[in-house]
Parts: sequence; structure tokens; C-alpha cells
Amino acid sequence: MASVASATSAPSSHKAADTVIQLAQTHKPKPDPNGLVFGSVFTDHMLTIEWSLQEGWQKPHIQPFGNLSMHPGCSALHYAIQLFEGMKAYRGPDNKVRLFRPMLNMNRMLKSAHRACLPSFDCAELMECIKKLVDLDQDWVPHSDSASLYIRPTLLGTEPTLGVKKPSSALLFVILSPVGSYFSTGAKPVSLWADSKYIRAWRGGTGDCKMGGNYGSSIYAQYEAVDFGCQQVLWLYGDDHQITEVGTMNLFLYWINEKGEEELATPPLDGIILPGVTRQSILELARQWSGFKVSERYLTMSDLRRALEENRVKEMFGSGTACVVSPVGRILYQGENLHIPCEGSFPPLASRLLKELTDIQYGRTPSDWSCII
Amino acid sequence: MASVASATSAPSSHKAADTVIQLAQTHKPKPDPNGLVFGSVFTDHMLTIEWSLQEGWQKPHIQPFGNLSMHPGCSALHYAIQLFEGMKAYRGPDNKVRLFRPMLNMNRMLKSAHRACLPSFDCAELMECIKKLVDLDQDWVPHSDSASLYIRPTLLGTEPTLGVKKPSSALLFVILSPVGSYFSTGAKPVSLWADSKYIRAWRGGTGDCKMGGNYGSSIYAQYEAVDFGCQQVLWLYGDDHQITEVGTMNLFLYWINEKGEEELATPPLDGIILPGVTRQSILELARQWSGFKVSERYLTMSDLRRALEENRVKEMFGSGTACVVSPVGRILYQGENLHIPCEGSFPPLASRLLKELTDIQYGRTPSDWSCII
Repeated sequence: MASVASATSAPSSHKAADTVIQLAQTHKPKPDPNGLVFGSVFTDHMLTIEWSLQEGWQKPHIQPFGNLSMHPGCSALHYAIQLFEGMKAYRGPDNKVRLFRPMLNMNRMLKSAHRACLPSFDCAELMECIKKLVDLDQDWVPHSDSASLYIRPTLLGTEPTLGVKKPSSALLFVILSPVGSYFSTGAKPVSLWADSKYIRAWRGGTGDCKMGGNYGSSIYAQYEAVDFGCQQVLWLYGDDHQITEVGTMNLFLYWINEKGEEELATPPLDGIILPGVTRQSILELARQWSGFKVSERYLTMSDLRRALEENRVKEMFGSGTACVVSPVGRILYQGENLHIPCEGSFPPLASRLLKELTDIQYGRTPSDWSCII
Repeated sequence: MASVASATSAPSSHKAADTVIQLAQTHKPKPDPNGLVFGSVFTDHMLTIEWSLQEGWQKPHIQPFGNLSMHPGCSALHYAIQLFEGMKAYRGPDNKVRLFRPMLNMNRMLKSAHRACLPSFDCAELMECIKKLVDLDQDWVPHSDSASLYIRPTLLGTEPTLGVKKPSSALLFVILSPVGSYFSTGAKPVSLWADSKYIRAWRGGTGDCKMGGNYGSSIYAQYEAVDFGCQQVLWLYGDDHQITEVGTMNLFLYWINEKGEEELATPPLDGIILPGVTRQSILELARQWSGFKVSERYLTMSDLRRALEENRVKEMFGSGTACVVSPVGRILYQGENLHIPCEGSFPPLASRLLKELTDIQYGRTPSDWSCII
């Protein structure tokens, strides 16, 4: 409420213009972009911004990358009052560094902050702070048309008491990591384990926000998927086994639907699905092309199984900032392997989307989705 | 798998006998036990034990209470790979310090660790480490028959990389805080907001484990409860609005049931309810008394409403380590205030249970549930 915020002297947002920069004295060696394990190497600097109920947002600090000093009673460590975002900076053939629709990430981060009872902030100011950080560490953006610099904004409750309540202090920080492909198998089709034994998210929960708790609770099922010879979990929902998402990816089915229409379909944003930036971009691109129907609709495992039996499935793929577009080759469901068509290893629509998206991301195609730093 | 553990040299548990103690140089003043805000003051020492996949559990360290140094990419901060326990040490009239059924907490912690993909440990060894810590800070156990020393064991994933996976390193720590009543209103009956808009836990999730994500996601609803003039959320489940728990308390209904039987009932442990130590103790005590039926059974809001209309409700109360027993006076449900009978402010069965439990906890009644330090 603007009236409340302006009635106090506490700043309602940090200001990028106030950023205090302390340069690192040493510089780490840059890794080979071909051998990168996702999120394991970090750049020389990080951004930190503190908030307290009494004093509001403090000045942003860009400082040498290093450990955080945290009170052992703090609410991020006990009650998972925490959220994050994931975005990337790409180096183009013109050597310019670009972000991809970064305000979508900022807006989603603000929505997560609201759900987590963490403080709100001005998205444009945070974006400017992140640009300053990426600009300072721009040598870390890989010279590569497949690698990029992953940007991880994080917001934590730092209330140093054990009551379960809205935190009266918080820490926003941003770290940067040069990355290659998210999956260690590279661009090969992924295999998914679909079982209703574990549920990722539910209505009335936090599945549509990027809160830490959605992820920690998923890892157990992920290892059960591996035990069954699959790479990832396809999370189902409800008695009718609705297809929802993969946890690190949204899902798309490209098929001839029950009415005989050629359709690209993905589950709707009904509260249990993460509203992915890549998901939204694929929907918008495909709607521009207008060669087939594009739908946000429910899809069940029996819809999929019937369509496979009737040879109506053309492609299935995941989408996400980490993987961009990742074809699905196989789903293990109720003891049966459902094989999804994958011409070559990267089917035509997935390939077209991957090319279109990465051409924009790397600046090979001009687009107002691209934001030069 | 025992065979796997013994095939490596990595210790499968920390050993209390290896504990390294570094004493604090200064001692903080002890607070007045009457003015304590839950979990806001901590003692002079803490216990920390590190684990890594390569080296297993390291030596336990008891050291001065202080901030933790955490990698900003660590999995406890991004993916809520974290869990905790809550237990108390009580000072009796004989000046001895006792724990209450502490192995139940250790076993539940191990179960949470399994679900969170965090390392397992020997519960008895951890218990011994905690006893050493409480013994060292025993002057902090309040000289009071209502206050106690709250013990907060915590286990965090400290994997310093951003892939969503089982952590290869972890930190177990224990902090201690002298506490009075959990609710700032003291022993007055609490008011609950019952609405199906938010759901705490669901089958296939983590509601039966003490993982951080269960709590962070609940705070938003908690403030909506306050907006509606209630203190806490009564979490409902399913289309029939089953009564589940309060998040910080399990719930009991003492009533004449549909069959005309006098019954003490609490929802069953079906995966969405936290298996509370106080809940279990109340069930066991009440079954020993054998004056009425004691049931773990489903209870819906319409069961409760009908029983209230027919004057069949005798008492309703919550149970938990923090609050022990806390009568419920009012539930706001579908716009209607349901008033629960509360003779005086503490009805007879709740009073009897509170007295019996605290007599054991403070050592006024000998019991093998009590564990002298």
C-alpha cells in the first residue's frame, strides 16, 4: 500500500544509483565453457542488499564473492523463508552481452516475495543493480554460442528468532555462474518417471512461486526416478493424473488432439504450475507463427497414452531457462515405457523453437525481448 | 545399506565421545523467565557437526554461539534442503534438568533427514551430543515451573552448487533458547481461522516431516487469519474439509461422537499430519486412563458443526512441544464463529493433560518418559 510506505521513512526499494562497489583484489581463472557443471563455478563479485522492517532497504553492495555470515536462528534456515530466480546473460557474435526478458523474472520474483511474506521492492531498480553486477563481471560471460552466464537472484528471511512469523529482516543477493547445458547428457532426449506417489504442488500451496520449499521436497522423488532408470520426474496431479511439469521445466505436447486439430498444448497456470519465462515465450512465438492451434489446457496421462496408441503425438518437450528446450523421449508410467517420437534426437518443432529463442537470446535476431547490458 | 556404509571409511555417524569443546570467553546475562519472547534469546554455546559424502561425519564441536559462514550457493538457502526439531529441557524442584522423550525427536529427525535426502546418523550419539551441550549451558535452564530451555536441532544441505540434487555436504547444528509460553496471549484459549483457500500439506508431500518448506509456505495464510481476527490457521484438507492440524500444534476434539460415545479424537497419521511427541503422549496417557474412547480418526468441519449444534462438544485443544496443551475457544469457518466450550479458560481434560504432562516434564512425577541430564 503506497500510502503506508510513504508514511514511513523506511525506503520502499533499494536504489541502483546508491550502489557501493568494492572490487575483488584477485580474479579467479575463467573455466573452459565446454566442461561446465551447472552452477558450480561462481564469478568474482556478488550483489547484496539488506532490508529491515525499521530501516527499509539499504544501499546495494557489489562486493567480492564470498561466504555469507548468517545467524543460526534465522528464518531462511529453519522455515525456508526463501525464494530465488534464474535468468541468463548471453554473449552475441557482436560481443555484446544481453539479457532475455529480464523484467519477467523481476516481476515473478516480486510475486514470490509477496507469497513468502518477504519485502517488496522496485523491479526496475533491482534490474539496474543486476546489470551493474553483470557489467562488472562481463568477462565471465562465455565466448560461446551454447554457454551463458547464469544469474541467480535470491531473497532470504534473516529474522534471527524462532517464532514462525513474517521476518523483520531480509537479505537479497545475486550470484553469477557460467554454465553450459543443464542436463549432463547434453541435448539428448530426456526420460521421465510419471508416478502419483509424490506430488510436487497442490492448489492452495506455493507451486506457482519460485520458493525453495518446492525444490527440496522434490529431490527424494528425483532419486526414485533414477532408480527406475529415468532422468527426471514428471509430476502428476489429481485422480485423473494430469500432466503438470518437471520441476526444472514446463512441458509441451505437440500433437493431433482429440478433435483432430494440430495443437501445441501446455498445462494452464492454475496455481500449481511455475509460470516459466521460456514457457511464455514459446506460447507467444507459436501464436505468432499461427500454423497450428496453441493451447493452455489440461492434459492427462490417459490423453497422452491414447494419442500415442493412435499415432497422434508429434513431439513432447520441456522448456526452462536452464535447458531452453529439451525433447522428451520416454515416459515410464504404470510400469510401461511410453515412447515419444523424436526424429533424430531433436524433433522439428523443438528445433525451430530452440533456434528462434537462442537466436534472440544471443542477439543473432533483433528482438525487443533482448536487453543489451 | 549397512554393507555400503561399512565398505567405505566415511563414518556413518558422529560420535559424542569425539566432541571437541571450545568454551565461550564471555557469558551473556540470563533473561527474566517471565518476559521471554519465544526463541529470541540464545545461550552461550552451540553444537555443530559437519558431514560430507567423501569424509562422512566429522567430530562434533561445541563452540561459542555465533553466526554460521555459509556459501551463497548452498542448497539450504536455494532449495530449502533443511529440517529441524523442537524439544525442551526442564528444571525440576529437585534442581535436576530433564528432557522429555528425546529419542522420539531424534527418530523423527532421522525420518525427516531421509525425506530431505540429507545424511542419516546414529540417534543415540546425537542425543549424547545434545546432552553435553545442555549440560554445559545448564545455568540457562530457567528456574521456573512454566519456562524451559528450548532445544533446536537443525540439519542443512550445504552443497555449494546450484543443481537441484542430493547434497554432498551438510551441517547439523543445535542451538538453545530459554522460553516461556509460545503464544503471546499466554494460557488463554486460541482462536482459529478455518478456510480451504490455503492447504498446508497433501498426500505425496512432506507434511509428516519437520522440513522448513512446510512452515515458510504457511506464513501468508497466518496473516490472513490475523486479518480475520484469529490467531492461527486451522488447516483443512480435501473436499469434505477434514480438520488436520494448526501447523505449530496437533488438534484434539473431546466430544460425544456420532454414536453417543465419549471420545477423545485426533486426526490419524496418514502422511499430512506432523507426528507430534505431545500428540503421542496425550494418546498414550488417555488410553491408560481408559475413562473414554481414544481414537485416531478423521474429523470434518461438518462433524464439528453438527456436534456443536447438538451440544456434544466438550473441549477442543491443540498440543505441541512449544505450547504443551492449548485450548481452542473459537473457530471462524465460512463466515461463522463456532464457539467451543471452554469452562473457565482451561477446560477440565486439557487441564488434566497439561498437569500430567508438565508433572512428568518437570520431574514432579517420576516417569520413564523423563530423561535426566
